[in-house]
Amino acid sequence: MYHPMTSDELSMLKQLLPEGQVLTGDEISSDYYHDELSGTEAKPEALVFVLSTEETSRVMRFAYERNIPVTTRGSGTGLVGAAVAVHGGILLCTSKMNHILELDEDNLTVTVQPGVLLMELAAYTEEHGYLYPPDPGEKTATIGGNISTNAGGMRAVRYGVTRDYVRGLTVVLANGEIITLGGKVVKNSSGYSLLNLMIGSEGTLGIITEAILKLLPLPSKSISLLIPFPSMDEALDTVPFLVRSGTNPTAIEYMSKDVILYAQDYLSKKFPDTSHDAYLLLTYDGQSLEEVEKNYDAACRLAIEHGAVDAYFVDTDERKKPVWSARGAFLEAIKASTDEMDECDVVVPRRRIADFIKYTHQLAKELDIRIPSFGHAGDGNLHVYMCRDGLDEAAWKDKLSICFEKMYAKAGEFGGQVSGEHGIGFAKRPYLAERLGPVQIDLMRGIKAAFDPKGLLNPDKIFKLDDKKTVC
Amino acid sequence: MYHPMTSDELSMLKQLLPEGQVLTGDEISSDYYHDELSGTEAKPEALVFVLSTEETSRVMRFAYERNIPVTTRGSGTGLVGAAVAVHGGILLCTSKMNHILELDEDNLTVTVQPGVLLMELAAYTEEHGYLYPPDPGEKTATIGGNISTNAGGMRAVRYGVTRDYVRGLTVVLANGEIITLGGKVVKNSSGYSLLNLMIGSEGTLGIITEAILKLLPLPSKSISLLIPFPSMDEALDTVPFLVRSGTNPTAIEYMSKDVILYAQDYLSKKFPDTSHDAYLLLTYDGQSLEEVEKNYDAACRLAIEHGAVDAYFVDTDERKKPVWSARGAFLEAIKASTDEMDECDVVVPRRRIADFIKYTHQLAKELDIRIPSFGHAGDGNLHVYMCRDGLDEAAWKDKLSICFEKMYAKAGEFGGQVSGEHGIGFAKRPYLAERLGPVQIDLMRGIKAAFDPKGLLNPDKIFKLDDKKTVC
Repeated sequence: MYHPMTSDELSMLKQLLPEGQVLTGDEISSDYYHDELSGTEAKPEALVFVLSTEETSRVMRFAYERNIPVTTRGSGTGLVGAAVAVHGGILLCTSKMNHILELDEDNLTVTVQPGVLLMELAAYTEEHGYLYPPDPGEKTATIGGNISTNAGGMRAVRYGVTRDYVRGLTVVLANGEIITLGGKVVKNSSGYSLLNLMIGSEGTLGIITEAILKLLPLPSKSISLLIPFPSMDEALDTVPFLVRSGTNPTAIEYMSKDVILYAQDYLSKKFPDTSHDAYLLLTYDGQSLEEVEKNYDAACRLAIEHGAVDAYFVDTDERKKPVWSARGAFLEAIKASTDEMDECDVVVPRRRIADFIKYTHQLAKELDIRIPSFGHAGDGNLHVYMCRDGLDEAAWKDKLSICFEKMYAKAGEFGGQVSGEHGIGFAKRPYLAERLGPVQIDLMRGIKAAFDPKGLLNPDKIFKLDDKKTVC
Repeated sequence: MYHPMTSDELSMLKQLLPEGQVLTGDEISSDYYHDELSGTEAKPEALVFVLSTEETSRVMRFAYERNIPVTTRGSGTGLVGAAVAVHGGILLCTSKMNHILELDEDNLTVTVQPGVLLMELAAYTEEHGYLYPPDPGEKTATIGGNISTNAGGMRAVRYGVTRDYVRGLTVVLANGEIITLGGKVVKNSSGYSLLNLMIGSEGTLGIITEAILKLLPLPSKSISLLIPFPSMDEALDTVPFLVRSGTNPTAIEYMSKDVILYAQDYLSKKFPDTSHDAYLLLTYDGQSLEEVEKNYDAACRLAIEHGAVDAYFVDTDERKKPVWSARGAFLEAIKASTDEMDECDVVVPRRRIADFIKYTHQLAKELDIRIPSFGHAGDGNLHVYMCRDGLDEAAWKDKLSICFEKMYAKAGEFGGQVSGEHGIGFAKRPYLAERLGPVQIDLMRGIKAAFDPKGLLNPDKIFKLDDKKTVC
């Protein structure tokens, strides 16, 4: 185990950075003890705000010499406890490294610090006529956090996920060394892809202090369609046909009536239609109205052929607002509908989504709990929520644990994976270990040891460190 | 160092697999001593053709127990010596694992064995109405080889590279264990991406025995444009404007008059136009003629604005054949124009291609050798060829070595990388070490040790193994 930081160490750390950047003891707000959802809680011994790669390196050299664990945090919007300092030590916060450093229009890249918020980046790039395609629901997440979890989002059907837009990274290693991976190059076949290894590694292999991101020209037209179906089966059975239709949808979101009603209640805003059981929300974009029209026309015809009842254009402000604000509020609305909840962010092959949702319905009956869900139907990534609804602590923990185990087992059976976009962090470790088995977890431990032999960077996240390898 | 296989070991190996699958001594054709270009040559002690994952695992368990190095080979079309058994031992050939196992139209994936040739996969998917986008020039390469080098190709501007189309892999590890990575899922944030680590690892971390690849709906229209420019500068200066134009080009290839003339000679076939110094070859594709027309019209206007002399449609068979057969024959044509050559597959930020080519012209003058080049202008990946042209051995080696060193140094200066798509293999190791520095190479060594602690899988490729870690 890691030893508690001595008061000497705490004051040395304070002297390492300009005043106000290192907080200790009661100076640390309890906001920094937890993330958005996971329930994991721990108080860091020091909260450090870094402003540069060089400062980050300085902190890491200090921590490395003294065997102090360091957990990196962006804006703390994670859902699985990845940014909680479970072993105490230093919580290194990159949220003040929030500058957009360069827009390179010749190479179609933007270079950013890790603390830039997704919504800031979106506004900046759009203003300059470019699109940064990854579009996770949580717009106040930092880019550093998005890269660390390989965040996905709604536009993945057409554009892919964060991994597909990271061209280069500057990373501070456990011992304070600074490396740069990739660059402004489009192709790269120059040794193991340390860049791709860093993406999705949740702060366990290094600290991202700069990122070069790929941009696309901004589509000039974007239109959404809300398509009601009589049943979930008909809605979800249509999805593979849409994906292989050649209409190139940007997003295919699935929402059921019950979840829409939660959002309606939560926002006190009427949704355009709630008379059907299941809905697909499609987005099409492109460089001309004709192109977009051609595609959504074909999509509408295809949906109607597969049982859709109607198709509403979501193109006026009157419709856009209620639809997208509802879609954006699902998580919060479900949260507000109960006293406590936990989530599962499972991903299955696109074809198995309906089967998986049916299985959650069956589980809800068996366990007598409420399990609403919604998700990215186009890429098989579901967000499933288990609601406590007043259960006592023991019954809740018990049902939750059965529920998680059964759901991840079913996902495995379907060829799915534990997390599509939220990561493993602290909360999902046992399920990852179960799904991947000891051989792959040991390979990950070996990689961790190559990057961080002392086990200091966000220790015991993704997988438990080998006890023998943990420093004392 | 590895010890030579004993005659006992060779006969045990022969008994491990059905007759005819293990060749030794003079049974091994000298074709298996080398690859397509690199000049690296070594005779394997045993040439093994595996037919299944299980057989591959059986061979690896045998090799692991006895510390025998194993080099994996597809169809041997590599250019950097990656598939040459430099330490002897077993050359494990996957070329007979050449079955397409499943087309899953619901999940838009195709599952293949590693020995399927790129051209076989292309024909199969097109026949079924789908596109496997990666399009490297060498169509007789295996998919396993393409994944092992993260091969790129011409369509990378629009669609990306091999990495972007690998959804899942079955891999045999050094000790014979079998693991499956990824799957038919679109998003994945479940621990370190061992999948992405395996892609581009050139057979040093495991043996790929099955792959799940992502497909796209086949574009129904595809048209190319040949655009002559008065000079290289004008041609290459136009490229960034095309990429950010929103016209979404599939390919942007650069070719100079001299290289076209080599191909014309080599093929004895007239190229449509050779009256200008520089050419861009663009491809546009899409689901409708209107969409494609709209895009190439805009591209033509843009090119003319930036100095293009004309724009020829390459849409009739009469034009398609000479243009594409010339483009496909550049490597062979340059090879035929000299007694020996070596190549550099450097990648630089798109904006620096012209500067880089100019630097090769300057080097050609300084060193008094011929250095023709062509390349994927849209993604900054150049293929540069140093021609021996009758130089004596000493002068050739000398000039080649200066040339490589200077070119890679210049690429580094421009923020480029050693290889865009051919990999590092045996031939480019010193340049990778120089470019990335000891910290990154040591991280790669650490990863190698986690996967292959005995250093048996394709040893001393990409980087030299740590001498202390090489088994005796």
